[in-house]
Amino acid sequence: MDIEPIPLRIAIAGLGNVAQGVLELLRENGSVMATRAGRAIEVAVIASRSRRDVDLLGAEFTTDVLSLTRRQDVDLIVELMGGEGLALELVAQSLAAGRATVTANKAILATHGNRLFDLATQSRAPFGIEASVAGGIPIIAALTRATAASELNCVAGIINGTCNYILSAMSDQGESFESALVKAQALGYAEADPRFDVGGIDAAHKLTILASLAFGVPFDKAAVFTEGITDVTVDDITYARELGYRIKLLGIARRTAAGIEARVHPTLVPQDVMLASVAGVMNAVEVRGNAVSSLLFCGPGAGGKATASAVLADIIAIARGESPSRFSAGTKSCARVPMDLVSTAAYLRIPVIDQPGVFARIATILSEHGISIEGAIQRERAIADRKVPIVVVTQPVPEETMNRALAGLQALTAVVGEIRRIRVEHFDA
Amino acid sequence: MDIEPIPLRIAIAGLGNVAQGVLELLRENGSVMATRAGRAIEVAVIASRSRRDVDLLGAEFTTDVLSLTRRQDVDLIVELMGGEGLALELVAQSLAAGRATVTANKAILATHGNRLFDLATQSRAPFGIEASVAGGIPIIAALTRATAASELNCVAGIINGTCNYILSAMSDQGESFESALVKAQALGYAEADPRFDVGGIDAAHKLTILASLAFGVPFDKAAVFTEGITDVTVDDITYARELGYRIKLLGIARRTAAGIEARVHPTLVPQDVMLASVAGVMNAVEVRGNAVSSLLFCGPGAGGKATASAVLADIIAIARGESPSRFSAGTKSCARVPMDLVSTAAYLRIPVIDQPGVFARIATILSEHGISIEGAIQRERAIADRKVPIVVVTQPVPEETMNRALAGLQALTAVVGEIRRIRVEHFDA
Repeated sequence: MDIEPIPLRIAIAGLGNVAQGVLELLRENGSVMATRAGRAIEVAVIASRSRRDVDLLGAEFTTDVLSLTRRQDVDLIVELMGGEGLALELVAQSLAAGRATVTANKAILATHGNRLFDLATQSRAPFGIEASVAGGIPIIAALTRATAASELNCVAGIINGTCNYILSAMSDQGESFESALVKAQALGYAEADPRFDVGGIDAAHKLTILASLAFGVPFDKAAVFTEGITDVTVDDITYARELGYRIKLLGIARRTAAGIEARVHPTLVPQDVMLASVAGVMNAVEVRGNAVSSLLFCGPGAGGKATASAVLADIIAIARGESPSRFSAGTKSCARVPMDLVSTAAYLRIPVIDQPGVFARIATILSEHGISIEGAIQRERAIADRKVPIVVVTQPVPEETMNRALAGLQALTAVVGEIRRIRVEHFDA
Repeated sequence: MDIEPIPLRIAIAGLGNVAQGVLELLRENGSVMATRAGRAIEVAVIASRSRRDVDLLGAEFTTDVLSLTRRQDVDLIVELMGGEGLALELVAQSLAAGRATVTANKAILATHGNRLFDLATQSRAPFGIEASVAGGIPIIAALTRATAASELNCVAGIINGTCNYILSAMSDQGESFESALVKAQALGYAEADPRFDVGGIDAAHKLTILASLAFGVPFDKAAVFTEGITDVTVDDITYARELGYRIKLLGIARRTAAGIEARVHPTLVPQDVMLASVAGVMNAVEVRGNAVSSLLFCGPGAGGKATASAVLADIIAIARGESPSRFSAGTKSCARVPMDLVSTAAYLRIPVIDQPGVFARIATILSEHGISIEGAIQRERAIADRKVPIVVVTQPVPEETMNRALAGLQALTAVVGEIRRIRVEHFDA
């Protein structure tokens, strides 16, 4: 393969984990990347608030982030700062100027993706976003390239490693949510303020991007129903296991006859489905379409080097003259299915006073709403009038039906605490 | 996204399952593909031995395959005939003429890949080979694009769906190899002459391609150690399960200090490793490198539509002006590690006469060769002098050491049948 004498000169904004990963990989694997890119990749300038003690590979350093867009000696701008304000301004200016741009910033894509892709289309700027979802997993390439011959109908997966780590620790070591969270923080998986992860917001941002790429619809993060994992208990995990399920935080986007549904919530997944075996901080995304029945991609969803690898894959593609995330956002009219109309099966944990006939009353109310029971756990206790949980798994029904049934159940005098509902997905072939 | 007014005109050689899948997908998903490709994809001409009753989408038909390379009105030639003679000639002529070329033919790549990639490099012809390995799984893109920033050190996986179907049926339904093979044939998974699949040759062809792309070394199918699944018994599967393993036919290519090792053989895989849960005709490939620790790709490894989807992904990339399998084969000097020097753990099933001291004699011989035992199954029987199997799993040792130890074991008078050895891989993180 010929290598051009003129290197691709890049500017990097940010000097955190991912930026440091990019610099490290350029140092370690630079020559193999040059072969694959057809030219060397050279870091011309790095912009960040503070210099830090990092080998900049001879690059200039500046604290003036927006000055990068005014440099005439830079072929490509890489935004790895995170946050929305300055990062958004940099990416928008860079794309508006027709400059090749790579970002790992899911928040600006979820919130301003339509504007950014419009800018890229108008100026014909190559735009790489592989690192924005699921770290080192090439899921953007999977949706925009590998499955380009498919009409996709579902993209679903484990797209927040922190939550998967916490749920795995609760499941494997029987730890409480709180203690698993503390461990995740100690290992550097969770932020000091973990609400972004455990509240499902990070996963909702990523699902917004996946849904947009999979179905060619506008970025619309407000359309993603979002429920985090803070209310999942070890009891739920134990009961779910007894019924043949694992609990995972999933992002699910699906094309149905009624439109696109998009939701992030804790989910019971049958234990023999491959997503159920994805443990710890790993991510995994399944893609289904009419040409390829089902593809599953697993790998590290975070981490400096893994994410940097995705950033550099985009840079190498651009060095080859390609536009890695070529994309037709917003070209399709699309109805969004409101959560009320989404059908799922549900796991219900119902705290009751253990009296004769309680289960029958519960079954009757469900039946009155047309809800069939698929499985149940009801432990008999020696001591009557003791608080015990009844656990049922239902057949799929629309969310609004289940909500009405839940209100009916909650009103029973034998029900002595809040009913816990966790949705169930079977991923049938 | 603008769509150019001039379509990409393709010629297809072959009219079997995959070619029919391409035509079907163009009919069903043609307009979405045009958006993604930036132009319509039009089938100008189809060449095949016989016409068949297939909707050719208005394309011309010819039986003169090599005439395709003389057509001036064709932008891209797709070879989907299979076999080596005419298919090789077509692909070589097409590439030599600088024509964009896509093939699903693993046999010609494994055998003549160096020449074909040389031709593509010299003529700068875009060359797409995504469909040649693992059907709908984008593993070629994973190796040439997604992991372009990594030095890879291992690519391994389940790359023959027929064998995985047979081993799954033996494992799940306790079927014999012969009966599972008959079922696979009835379902259309196995060829009438199944030796190509069950002998591991098909997997060896695919591994030749994967090793070459992963490590940038020449295609060298003679360097792939190949053992098929014909000698795997239900007993082996049962004992393996008891010891915590599943048996899979794996292709494994690894970069070690001594050079590249490449081998296809039945393998015991720990049951909690994700490859162990890949069942039926599914394929799965794991890629490991210094930037991304481990990526796993699962999906349909065969089938007309899945493979056609990979063919069309290449065509769409070429329509966008890209060269999908840009590749630097043979640029690296590389030592190949001969199988004798490859280290693996091993499962040994040793048929013995059940007498006191037999296990001790076996353990002694292994120990004399420096081989430690990791686990064992030894069933005591009520009736002495009865033939029973002793099963041991060893620690890793070089193949030549194990071969010498096996000769010593086989010579014991208490050993009353051929010792069965199946290699073990742990895929430690």
